[in-house]
Amino acid sequence: MISYKNKAWKQEMAVRLDYNHVMARFMGEEHGVFDGEIESLQSETKEIHHEIKEKRSQGRLPFLDLPDQDVKGILELAKAVRKRCESFVVLGIGGSALGNTSLHMALNHPYYNELTKTGRKRAPRIYVLDNVDPDHLRGLLDILDLKKTCFNVITKSGGTAETMANFLICQEALIEAVGRENHQDRIIVTTDKSKGNLKRVADREGYSCLVIPDGVGGRFSVLTPVGLLSAAVSGIHIRELLAGAAFMERRCRKAKLRENPAYLNAAVHYILNTKRGKRISVMMPYSNALYGFADWYRQLWSESLGKRNALDGREVFAGQTPVKSLGTTDQHSQIQLYVEGPNDKVITFLGVENFREKMEIPESYSEMEGISYLGKHTLEELIQAEQQATAYALTRHQRPNLTLTLKELNPFSLGQLFMMYEIQTIFSGGLYRINPLDQPGVEDGKVATYALMGRPGYEEQKEEMGKLGAGDDKYIISL
Amino acid sequence: MISYKNKAWKQEMAVRLDYNHVMARFMGEEHGVFDGEIESLQSETKEIHHEIKEKRSQGRLPFLDLPDQDVKGILELAKAVRKRCESFVVLGIGGSALGNTSLHMALNHPYYNELTKTGRKRAPRIYVLDNVDPDHLRGLLDILDLKKTCFNVITKSGGTAETMANFLICQEALIEAVGRENHQDRIIVTTDKSKGNLKRVADREGYSCLVIPDGVGGRFSVLTPVGLLSAAVSGIHIRELLAGAAFMERRCRKAKLRENPAYLNAAVHYILNTKRGKRISVMMPYSNALYGFADWYRQLWSESLGKRNALDGREVFAGQTPVKSLGTTDQHSQIQLYVEGPNDKVITFLGVENFREKMEIPESYSEMEGISYLGKHTLEELIQAEQQATAYALTRHQRPNLTLTLKELNPFSLGQLFMMYEIQTIFSGGLYRINPLDQPGVEDGKVATYALMGRPGYEEQKEEMGKLGAGDDKYIISL
Repeated sequence: MISYKNKAWKQEMAVRLDYNHVMARFMGEEHGVFDGEIESLQSETKEIHHEIKEKRSQGRLPFLDLPDQDVKGILELAKAVRKRCESFVVLGIGGSALGNTSLHMALNHPYYNELTKTGRKRAPRIYVLDNVDPDHLRGLLDILDLKKTCFNVITKSGGTAETMANFLICQEALIEAVGRENHQDRIIVTTDKSKGNLKRVADREGYSCLVIPDGVGGRFSVLTPVGLLSAAVSGIHIRELLAGAAFMERRCRKAKLRENPAYLNAAVHYILNTKRGKRISVMMPYSNALYGFADWYRQLWSESLGKRNALDGREVFAGQTPVKSLGTTDQHSQIQLYVEGPNDKVITFLGVENFREKMEIPESYSEMEGISYLGKHTLEELIQAEQQATAYALTRHQRPNLTLTLKELNPFSLGQLFMMYEIQTIFSGGLYRINPLDQPGVEDGKVATYALMGRPGYEEQKEEMGKLGAGDDKYIISL
Repeated sequence: MISYKNKAWKQEMAVRLDYNHVMARFMGEEHGVFDGEIESLQSETKEIHHEIKEKRSQGRLPFLDLPDQDVKGILELAKAVRKRCESFVVLGIGGSALGNTSLHMALNHPYYNELTKTGRKRAPRIYVLDNVDPDHLRGLLDILDLKKTCFNVITKSGGTAETMANFLICQEALIEAVGRENHQDRIIVTTDKSKGNLKRVADREGYSCLVIPDGVGGRFSVLTPVGLLSAAVSGIHIRELLAGAAFMERRCRKAKLRENPAYLNAAVHYILNTKRGKRISVMMPYSNALYGFADWYRQLWSESLGKRNALDGREVFAGQTPVKSLGTTDQHSQIQLYVEGPNDKVITFLGVENFREKMEIPESYSEMEGISYLGKHTLEELIQAEQQATAYALTRHQRPNLTLTLKELNPFSLGQLFMMYEIQTIFSGGLYRINPLDQPGVEDGKVATYALMGRPGYEEQKEEMGKLGAGDDKYIISL
């Protein structure tokens, strides 16, 4: 990898956005976007652009400044962890897990944990525990050697039920394995600088703490210690990652739609959703390594935009439903639907121009028509041909699609993707006139969980739930 | 596990469907289903039911008879494989991979491969290679000891480009590792009984062959040797799986909607899609182990129903878009959208009543409000409370949802799920008046891939593709 300080290399590595196949020229009037529609959003774009600048200057969009952070502390801690343990377990959920997983999948060996187990890579194995499934946690404890394991507990509020439950169980198991006096340096806490239960526990027990900066919400936190520590532990070059994010952040300072990939992509999705009925946004990487990124995007897009707004005076619902899909795999699962089903989707391909490997296909049965054409090609050629072929098939059937291409998948290009989508999401919030930073819709479920778990103070809620009424056996088929 | 031959146990294990929360009583008129709407489908249901019976008697729905197959040959081969190798690699894609993965995830240890590596379980590790990503395949070859690896190449037609490309590369690597004369018993082919390139290769090389029965399409093939061999290799009790499928198949012989879980579920989804605008069907297991099942469902639903039909004389598009989601994890990613975003979804929860483990949460900080309420509960209670709480929140916001509950997750209950959804899909095809067994929409992409890869006979297609016209640089943002 050439250094991210090299300017020509950086330009070479700029992520490319091709949106030809959403335009009316290819899609027709019913499903395509007209140049005029993009232009007509330009003045609104300027306003939103200025709002973003203003908010930023008021410190209300601190995720934009994350590329400039000092990561020395994280790197030192990571180094210590690498020496100390052979397994590193992230306990988090949502924004405290998805960034970690996407980084790990994108930039580490596809069988990283098995590779390190055989001693062929000297770095801790990485596990991300992001559910409270008892069988799953039991299974994880089965394979961990707790004497050589570090836990990274991540929750901004310090009160996330799932994370705290997993923490309490793992803490007890760890103490049992190594003794209370030895367990402190096996737990690292990533949370608010001063508030919350987890911070109080950490102070009392003497755990190392990393701080999630004020005002950075979970789904925008991948480039804080939330995502960076486990990445650094596994050996990912986090400075290159931040350099990529910085590079994209600068690219996205332009107020002109046509020159700003984040704004343009937001505008195209907005037009397709509100004017052409494309209620679903599919992200379809042609790269196993980028499948985790699609899952990260799924949270960002859903939680930020899936809310009520007041567009055109009428109350309508914003929020495309994001779907993750994987090329070529899902060609054998989803493409029938995308091509012939309802024309209610816009599909974004994530393509990689240069894989690390090529993998030549041998010409073992050169006389056998139906196989022989594969010979002498590489898997890289095949996966790229299939991406092109799928884009062609969708385009022919007037299904809007666009393509984001990475010259290669590396920390610098992935950093660009994170930042581009974060800015695109904030900008989309402006277009939909909703607040992309809150998530009021998750409260009901949280409160109901507290009530069911008997948390003091939620007795009334339990009563409230009763009022909804029990289901009728008539609507249950049991045998 | 009690034997599947025990009648009381089978009844206990019957999968339960609760559809209270799709009914108008909870959902209101705009989003709910009325009893009358279900009743009004009853006469159509009888017709479709008879069509299914007729087709079955003509041998056109052979998947329904799979539970009765003789699995002795599969079990013997599996036994031999278990002795012979320490890694078992499935090469397949779509229906030749999703069933394998869903079985493996549902019924094996969550860290099965790492467990076997440490020698704590004496069975081969299982890998399913279902993409042509060169970095991924290289990564897999990095960790395999080819001298102790068996490959199972699965393609019905014997010509699937992705599978054959992977096969050619793995075959070459294997021959290099063990010698041509020793490689034969490391490759098992699952394909058509007589047709296709793979069959010809197998006959020439002397590979063992398993047969995919005639007329069983990829997405209905999980209970053929396609899914059963790798399951048996890993030690899954495939007879119990088939017994569960048989049990459900018998449950679904009733023509009465209210008594037939597959028909009822199909009818409810049909009404919600065509009359209430629920264009998206979310499957949300509250169990990590069932996440693979949701992916299997995604193919079944998409490829079977995502096609043009001629409903009410008008040409419309059938095909809900299936989405996989995971509870509790996706509460922190998708629930904001499901609760406050567009009311265009129906959500199916998959719940497990008894996990294998309970996992008690210790009361380590009993004085700390905000954590203490978790103490003395179990993770099982927490994940179930969250499922209930999410259903409550959705119901309160008039988002239709239903719940399928498994007494426990075991081969018998999973077999039921597979069969129920297959029958539900066939029945849905009848409601939408489309053929659920074909997939014409994938042809364009396949043919375009052949053209791009230079397969002889596809030169015209390449020309055709050229006519679509090249994109304009104006619509590319590169820097």
